[in-house]
Amino acid sequence: MATAGKVIKCKAAVAWEAGKPLSIEEVEVAPPQAMEVRVKILYTALCHTDVYFWEAKGQTPVFPRILGHEAGGIVESVGEGVTELAPGDHVLPVFTGEFKECDHCKSEESNMCDLLRINVDRGVMIGDGKSRFTIKGKPIFHFVGTSTFSEYTVIHVGCLAKINPEAPLDKVCILSCGFSTGFGATVNVAKPKKGQTVAIFGLGAVGLAAMEGARLSGASRIIGVDLNPAKFEQAKKFGCTDFVNPKDHSKPVHEVLIEMTNGGLDRAVECTGNINAMISCFECVHDGWGVAVLVGVPTKDDVFKTHPMNFLNEKTLKGTFFGNYKPRTDLPNVVELYMKKELELEKFITHSVPFSEINTAFDLMLKGESLRCVMRMDE
Amino acid sequence: MATAGKVIKCKAAVAWEAGKPLSIEEVEVAPPQAMEVRVKILYTALCHTDVYFWEAKGQTPVFPRILGHEAGGIVESVGEGVTELAPGDHVLPVFTGEFKECDHCKSEESNMCDLLRINVDRGVMIGDGKSRFTIKGKPIFHFVGTSTFSEYTVIHVGCLAKINPEAPLDKVCILSCGFSTGFGATVNVAKPKKGQTVAIFGLGAVGLAAMEGARLSGASRIIGVDLNPAKFEQAKKFGCTDFVNPKDHSKPVHEVLIEMTNGGLDRAVECTGNINAMISCFECVHDGWGVAVLVGVPTKDDVFKTHPMNFLNEKTLKGTFFGNYKPRTDLPNVVELYMKKELELEKFITHSVPFSEINTAFDLMLKGESLRCVMRMDE
Repeated sequence: MATAGKVIKCKAAVAWEAGKPLSIEEVEVAPPQAMEVRVKILYTALCHTDVYFWEAKGQTPVFPRILGHEAGGIVESVGEGVTELAPGDHVLPVFTGEFKECDHCKSEESNMCDLLRINVDRGVMIGDGKSRFTIKGKPIFHFVGTSTFSEYTVIHVGCLAKINPEAPLDKVCILSCGFSTGFGATVNVAKPKKGQTVAIFGLGAVGLAAMEGARLSGASRIIGVDLNPAKFEQAKKFGCTDFVNPKDHSKPVHEVLIEMTNGGLDRAVECTGNINAMISCFECVHDGWGVAVLVGVPTKDDVFKTHPMNFLNEKTLKGTFFGNYKPRTDLPNVVELYMKKELELEKFITHSVPFSEINTAFDLMLKGESLRCVMRMDE
Repeated sequence: MATAGKVIKCKAAVAWEAGKPLSIEEVEVAPPQAMEVRVKILYTALCHTDVYFWEAKGQTPVFPRILGHEAGGIVESVGEGVTELAPGDHVLPVFTGEFKECDHCKSEESNMCDLLRINVDRGVMIGDGKSRFTIKGKPIFHFVGTSTFSEYTVIHVGCLAKINPEAPLDKVCILSCGFSTGFGATVNVAKPKKGQTVAIFGLGAVGLAAMEGARLSGASRIIGVDLNPAKFEQAKKFGCTDFVNPKDHSKPVHEVLIEMTNGGLDRAVECTGNINAMISCFECVHDGWGVAVLVGVPTKDDVFKTHPMNFLNEKTLKGTFFGNYKPRTDLPNVVELYMKKELELEKFITHSVPFSEINTAFDLMLKGESLRCVMRMDE
C-alpha cells in the first residue's frame, strides 16, 4: 500500500482525562515496528472495560490515551519479522496475546501468554516501550495493546487473530472480548452436558454470552440471577428459563437456587465480579459434580471464602480468562461458528452509531441501555 | 452355610469408651436383614479415621462401638433381596456405599450415594435403625456401616465391593479406604499428565498413595511436603524426588514451591486436613493450568480463603471423597491393577499383628511408626 512505511494521519477518539468525554482528534500513527502490524479499524464496539479504565477509579490513570479493544479491521502494513499476516488480511485485535513461545502458549490448557498477557497499566508498545500515536508530535498512550478507537492502530502480531475474510466485521468485531469471554466460560470451562441445569450470575453482555453457551450446550434449565428485574425480559431471548433477583429473598441467593433445583445447579457461571455473587455461584452448585466458573473481575482486596468441605463434597471451582480461548488459535474458529449460523451475535448488538458519536456509546452503556454498541469508523 | 440365619458368636474388639484400649470380647452377630450381608472378616487394617473416632475429640461419642473399616472378607450369608452377592464371594467393605438408584450413583461424575454416603454418627443399620451386634443381649454400636474389627460383621450390600477371589485379602484389604482415597485423588481428580510436576502435602498413608498415583502417572518431579523430616526417606520409595519442610523456611511454603518449580506446580494434592496446608496447596499451583485437589478432612470451623484472581488466572480447585471411586463399580478394577502388579501395596503394609494384638496397631499408628498395620483375624 502507498501508506506502508509512512506516518498515517487519521481520526481517533482521545481520552484526555479520567471521566471526561472523548474528543475526536487527528492523530499521527507511526509505521509498525518489528513484530507489529498496522490495522485499519472498520468497526469497534464499546466494552465495560473501556469505561472502567476511562473512569480510572482505583486504577492507575494513564492519560491521554486511546481506548478501545473490541474491533474488526484489515491489515494495512506489517513490520519486520511479521510473516503470518499480510496487508489485506481481516483481523480481530485482542487485548491479550498469543506469541506461541512460552509454556502457556505451548500448553493445551492455558491461554495466558507470558509475553503478551493483558497489561492494563502499559500505555506503550512492548517492543521499544514507545507509543505509535502522537498529536503534533506529543505521544498519546495505547490501551491493552489494541487502542481500537482510532481509524488506524498499531498492534503486536501476537494480539491479532486472522479470520475468514467473508465474515462481516460489523458483527464479528464483538468476538474480540466480551462475547468470547462469556461464551467460552460456559463451553470451554463449565462444559454443561445436554440436559443439565446452569445458573448465570449477571445478565450483562458477558453473562448473556455465557447464557448463549448454555443454550447451545442443550441446558434444560437456565437460571439468570441479577439485581435488575428488567434484565429478565431480554435474557429470555438468550434461553433464560427462570429469573432470580437476590433482592426478592431474605435468605442467601444460593439457598434459593439450591431449593429450586433439588440440591443445586449442575453448572454456574459468575459474570459480575462481585465477591458475594462469586461465593454464591460456588455454594449453589450440586455436590458430587457441580462446577462453578468465575468470570467477573474482582477488586484487589476481595477474599473468596468458603468451607473446605464444599470441595471434599466434590464441587469444583474454576475461573477463566478470555473464556480460555487462545486468541490466534481459537478465535478464527469462533468466527466460523457464527458463519455456520450457530451463534446469534445480532442479539448482542443493540446499538450502532457513527464513530463521531462515540460519547453516545458511552452514555448508553453507563445508563445500562446497551449490550453492545458498534461504532462505524467510516462515518 | 450351617450358620446362615443363625446368630454367630465370635470375637470382636470393642471400644467401650473414648481413648481407652479396645477389649476383645465375645459378641453375638445377628443374621443379615433385607439388603444386608454377613461377612467373615479375614484381614482388617487400622486407618487414622478409626483412631479419630476412638479418641472422639470434638466428635459425637458413640460407645460402646466396634470400629474398623479397612478390611477384606468372605460372604457368609445374605439377607432378603440380595442378588448380587452370594456366600463365598470375596468382598471389600467400604465406609460409603453405592446403591445405584440416586442421581449421584447415576452420574458418571459422583460417588456420593444419597442413601449410603458415609455417616459417622450413625451406629446402627440403615434398614431398621438397630444394631446387629450384642454382648449378652445388649447392643454394641456399628461404625460407618462396616465395623470390621470383628470376626463377623453385617454390612449393607451397597457397601461391599465384590472382587477377584484370587486377590490376596491380606494385601488388597488396604484398598478399602486410605489407599484408594489418596491414589484416586491423583489419578481420578488431579490427573497429572506424563512429565508434569506434582506436590503432595502430608506423607502419611493417604499422601503416599497419592504419590503412588503421581509415580504411575509418569510425573517428572514429585515434591513431598511434611513437617516431619523423617518422612522423606520413606517417601523416596514412593517416587518422592524432593522434600520440603515448611519449618525450614521463613516464607510461606507455597512461595518456596513456586520458586522451586519456575512458577508453580502442575498439580498438588493436600492430604493433611490442615487449613493452611489446603491454602498453600492451592496457592502453589501454576496459573493457566494448575489443579489443586483437597483430600484431608478439615474441622468444621475451618474457612478456605484465597484471592479470587487465582481462579481467573485459571487455577482449578477440586476436592475428592474416596478418591472419586464408586465403591462397587470401581474398586474391583483397582484390585485388578494390583493383580497386574501395577500397584505396589506391599510398601504400605509396614506391620502385621494378630487380631488379639489390635492395641499394638493403635500404638504404632499413634507413634507414627506404621503406615498400615494389617491384623490377621484367625490368630
